[in-house]
Amino acid sequence: MTINEYPAVGAFYDGRNCLFSVWAPQSEKVELVIGEGVYSMLRNKREFWTVIVEDIESGTPYWFRMNGKNLPDPASRSQADGVHGPSFVIDTEFSWTDNSWKGIPLSEMIIYELHVGTFSPSGNFDGVISRLDYLKDLGINAIELMPVVQFPGNRNWGYDGVYPFAVHHDYGGATGLMKLVDEAHRRSIAVILDVVYNHQGPEGNYLGEYGPYFTDKYKTWWGKAINFDDSWCDGVRHFYWQNALMWLDEFHVDGLRLDAVHAIWDFSASHFIEELSRKVRDLENRVGQKKVLIAEFDLNNPRYIRDREKGGYGLDGQWIDEFHHALHAVVTGETNGYYEDFGELTHLIKSFEHSYVYTGQYSRHRKKYFGVDPIDRSYDQFVVFAQNHDQIGNRLLGDRLTVSLSFEALKLVAGAVLLAPQVPLLFMGEEYGEKNPFQYFISHTDAQLVKMVQEGRRKEFSYFEWSGEVPDPQDEDTFEQCKLSWSSTADEGAVLLSYYKYLISFRKQRVAMRGKERKNVNVIQIPEKKIIVLDRSFMTDRILIFFNFEKDQSQVSHPLLASATKIFDSSAASWMLSGKASESTKVSTDTIMINPESVLIFETLAS
Amino acid sequence: MTINEYPAVGAFYDGRNCLFSVWAPQSEKVELVIGEGVYSMLRNKREFWTVIVEDIESGTPYWFRMNGKNLPDPASRSQADGVHGPSFVIDTEFSWTDNSWKGIPLSEMIIYELHVGTFSPSGNFDGVISRLDYLKDLGINAIELMPVVQFPGNRNWGYDGVYPFAVHHDYGGATGLMKLVDEAHRRSIAVILDVVYNHQGPEGNYLGEYGPYFTDKYKTWWGKAINFDDSWCDGVRHFYWQNALMWLDEFHVDGLRLDAVHAIWDFSASHFIEELSRKVRDLENRVGQKKVLIAEFDLNNPRYIRDREKGGYGLDGQWIDEFHHALHAVVTGETNGYYEDFGELTHLIKSFEHSYVYTGQYSRHRKKYFGVDPIDRSYDQFVVFAQNHDQIGNRLLGDRLTVSLSFEALKLVAGAVLLAPQVPLLFMGEEYGEKNPFQYFISHTDAQLVKMVQEGRRKEFSYFEWSGEVPDPQDEDTFEQCKLSWSSTADEGAVLLSYYKYLISFRKQRVAMRGKERKNVNVIQIPEKKIIVLDRSFMTDRILIFFNFEKDQSQVSHPLLASATKIFDSSAASWMLSGKASESTKVSTDTIMINPESVLIFETLAS
Repeated sequence: MTINEYPAVGAFYDGRNCLFSVWAPQSEKVELVIGEGVYSMLRNKREFWTVIVEDIESGTPYWFRMNGKNLPDPASRSQADGVHGPSFVIDTEFSWTDNSWKGIPLSEMIIYELHVGTFSPSGNFDGVISRLDYLKDLGINAIELMPVVQFPGNRNWGYDGVYPFAVHHDYGGATGLMKLVDEAHRRSIAVILDVVYNHQGPEGNYLGEYGPYFTDKYKTWWGKAINFDDSWCDGVRHFYWQNALMWLDEFHVDGLRLDAVHAIWDFSASHFIEELSRKVRDLENRVGQKKVLIAEFDLNNPRYIRDREKGGYGLDGQWIDEFHHALHAVVTGETNGYYEDFGELTHLIKSFEHSYVYTGQYSRHRKKYFGVDPIDRSYDQFVVFAQNHDQIGNRLLGDRLTVSLSFEALKLVAGAVLLAPQVPLLFMGEEYGEKNPFQYFISHTDAQLVKMVQEGRRKEFSYFEWSGEVPDPQDEDTFEQCKLSWSSTADEGAVLLSYYKYLISFRKQRVAMRGKERKNVNVIQIPEKKIIVLDRSFMTDRILIFFNFEKDQSQVSHPLLASATKIFDSSAASWMLSGKASESTKVSTDTIMINPESVLIFETLAS
Repeated sequence: MTINEYPAVGAFYDGRNCLFSVWAPQSEKVELVIGEGVYSMLRNKREFWTVIVEDIESGTPYWFRMNGKNLPDPASRSQADGVHGPSFVIDTEFSWTDNSWKGIPLSEMIIYELHVGTFSPSGNFDGVISRLDYLKDLGINAIELMPVVQFPGNRNWGYDGVYPFAVHHDYGGATGLMKLVDEAHRRSIAVILDVVYNHQGPEGNYLGEYGPYFTDKYKTWWGKAINFDDSWCDGVRHFYWQNALMWLDEFHVDGLRLDAVHAIWDFSASHFIEELSRKVRDLENRVGQKKVLIAEFDLNNPRYIRDREKGGYGLDGQWIDEFHHALHAVVTGETNGYYEDFGELTHLIKSFEHSYVYTGQYSRHRKKYFGVDPIDRSYDQFVVFAQNHDQIGNRLLGDRLTVSLSFEALKLVAGAVLLAPQVPLLFMGEEYGEKNPFQYFISHTDAQLVKMVQEGRRKEFSYFEWSGEVPDPQDEDTFEQCKLSWSSTADEGAVLLSYYKYLISFRKQRVAMRGKERKNVNVIQIPEKKIIVLDRSFMTDRILIFFNFEKDQSQVSHPLLASATKIFDSSAASWMLSGKASESTKVSTDTIMINPESVLIFETLAS
């Protein structure tokens, strides 16, 4: 394959010698600078510049020099002095203990999204490790880390990362991440990494100085698009492919969550994502471990998650923001912004059944017909959630559902996610009703940029009727407030936590929950009531799940109730705050009185 | 289907009453203006404005009025007074005589590309009709008309068209085109129309005044891209879909050649082209006629011509510029511009075998790896040519191969095209060795624009060592020089014409020429010689075709020659200018002495 003509980029250290390699297709001369030493680099025919330096210490800082300017390595593995400092040679030898680990397919995952900096008091990988037993006990078998590559300053969501190969130093660097992955695997927990291949952060981004990493063929929300299909694109494509393989292979990471894939503009005969999935399948075969590729993209196009044999791009799955929007709009009644396309119970029913809400209908918000029905795709290719970093953090106050919803409604949305036919994702803290917000925060050092972000943030929410101050993303307090408290109103938090634990366990063990094809799922609305009945069957098992979105008790008839037995009731004593229990009860053979904002499960006979 | 919510656009006249419909999504008020009469139009929920006016004469001029400004109809069927004048209501009733016509599949086509304005002395559809018998006698069964929609002035290639629904008035208008199609069908000749959906011409383009027909999401070579996937795109998508269906249905046109499909930027879940092919297949089923969709696109991506069931976009075929480039570079030795990626005999061999030359290799000209192998596609999905409007007209002097090649070489390239496994396309006049050029010409009325085009043209060719003047595209003489002379050096023209006629007939009748899969075609190079052997077999038939690109006689051995019989020799007396015959002859059982720049065909036994 032609691809082998591409050498890897970065500093490859064997404990003694180091090979330095950088792609700079339009430069006449590139040198390596280590302390007082300046080393000439040799160009190969695809414009990679390389040099081998012998007898180097781990931790040696280096620069590449072009036109008399010292620049950090775009493929740096360590930026211990920050995004503007030198790159560091590091030793990535690690004593792995996960030899028997085989990975987890997406279909079986219970995903927990977390932000390393705010998840634990220490705000680093060790802090995550210290909570792995807790997560395992909760039933989580996959943690998804928001981007962990080097970003400017020490507070950032991670999407401003500018060194895709360097693990953020303050989080614990490369070795810290390896240790986390190894510890997770010891507990049979997979690790998914959020990676950003659609843009680069605004500060400390030196890529453009090395070559045509960007193109003006397309416009993006963040300025110039990354060059995936224009002249010289191969150096760029390989840069990101190599990055993906580094995490999955060297770091033993189990999967990638690909950020905003719709902003990867590529009209090549073989799309960047298609080639990526091909390479990852090859890796899977080579290492004998399941690797999972999940995309975030706003296109409602099943081509991305269809097998390559069927003309697809071969990803395992994708996030379903529309499930969130449908659920959120129903429980909160919010109608601003993109929620204008949601708000009816039918939207949520549609998402339970088709995953996408928009499968060809007209979208008022987008002002166009949108999407196609992913009819040939399995439910376990879609990841659903009631909250995530974006859906909380992109709110004015970064407030979680705990602020706007009752305790009953929190259990209702948890039920909708964990009992859905799709793959559930939780956002850190939601399982015990965390009340701290998750706001947008940065710690840029470029004052002008900080001002721009602050103003942009104020502007974004100017339509809001809000008399207070918009939280300042640069303020350290904004960040500190977002750290998980690991406490909630005592009673409430404990009950909610065991409620999540119960439903996760139910999801894993109940046979009816295994049906992942359309024929295994039937969704209806109780006429004229905000009540959804999810009818799930698989093999000999069949259950009916009632989600009551009404704020009042409702009498509901269903023909199957006559032969059904109640096995779960979110208004049962064990899931209620003390002294509030009043279980839903049958009023006749096929009729029940269902409590407000509650979830009921009945078991019946498979037909 | 949601699509039915879209009414058609334009003026629909039933001989008495007329329904006017226009899409103007961001206007508060649209009126119809006919003479002194001003009619209010009503808006439907998808922002189409309509009004019905009774008792109208055919030929009535009309405008749409917005913000006090009279504008022509974007979907006008007639612009009898030019691109800046009013639109005209026309009666498109036509007495068709082609009821029994079923169309021709691409696999059987011998295509003849022509430009209506320069093909005949009269420069209109009648002029084309007057030559249909000649074309039929030549063996042509499909004519491909360069774009015929209304363009500024009276001289244009057609790609500056600005009224996709209006047949150019000076060519004969809608009725003139219908008459041409009907006359062609009477002679069993199909009509393919070149349509431009990737941009609009620069003069008389009022689309933007009606709504968001354009987007700045993507950059194009011609400015703003047409809006195929941004907000409000549906009005635009339907505008062009309706256009395609109008030609194929109302005008009985047999196929469309879609110009520069790579510049149709569309990230919708269902690409514009995919939906187009779906609609055209529906039409085929409804009318019981084969309709052909052929794309021009520069992506080497078989997805566009793959069945929709296999994740493709469902087009019938595509132009193969790379076959041209490979052939042209070999016979002319030119290496400038995109020819830098060609020039070796292996490029031509690759194209004979794979259709695409670049199937994943590095392209020096593009500075990237390019294309994938269309391994699952049939040869009859690819259209090849030695000349076309672009490849001639985009040269400094618009000179044809007759200027640079010997008579022998002209026959050699004709043989390469007509004996290729792909579908052949000829450019008007090449069959008799036309010597007149086909230059770039325009007749804009906007002086500033004319100046821009003239300067652009001079700049484009500034790298050329040429002491003369670059022909002025606006000069009427430039246009006049491009008209076919219908004469050539008497002897040469007559011989060449019968040579083309013979090869076309051979192609149609010889069984071995029917093999359209990879297994039916084997291509080798005679070692160290610029000689290609095309080994074609189908069912019980097998032929060997020798193309000698050497300028000298060459001795060639081939094991199959021992059992083969020569059935064609381009150096035989009948294909030579008077007194020059000297047929290639066998020198031993498996060896022949092959004449310079000649084509030989041997028949042998199918294995």
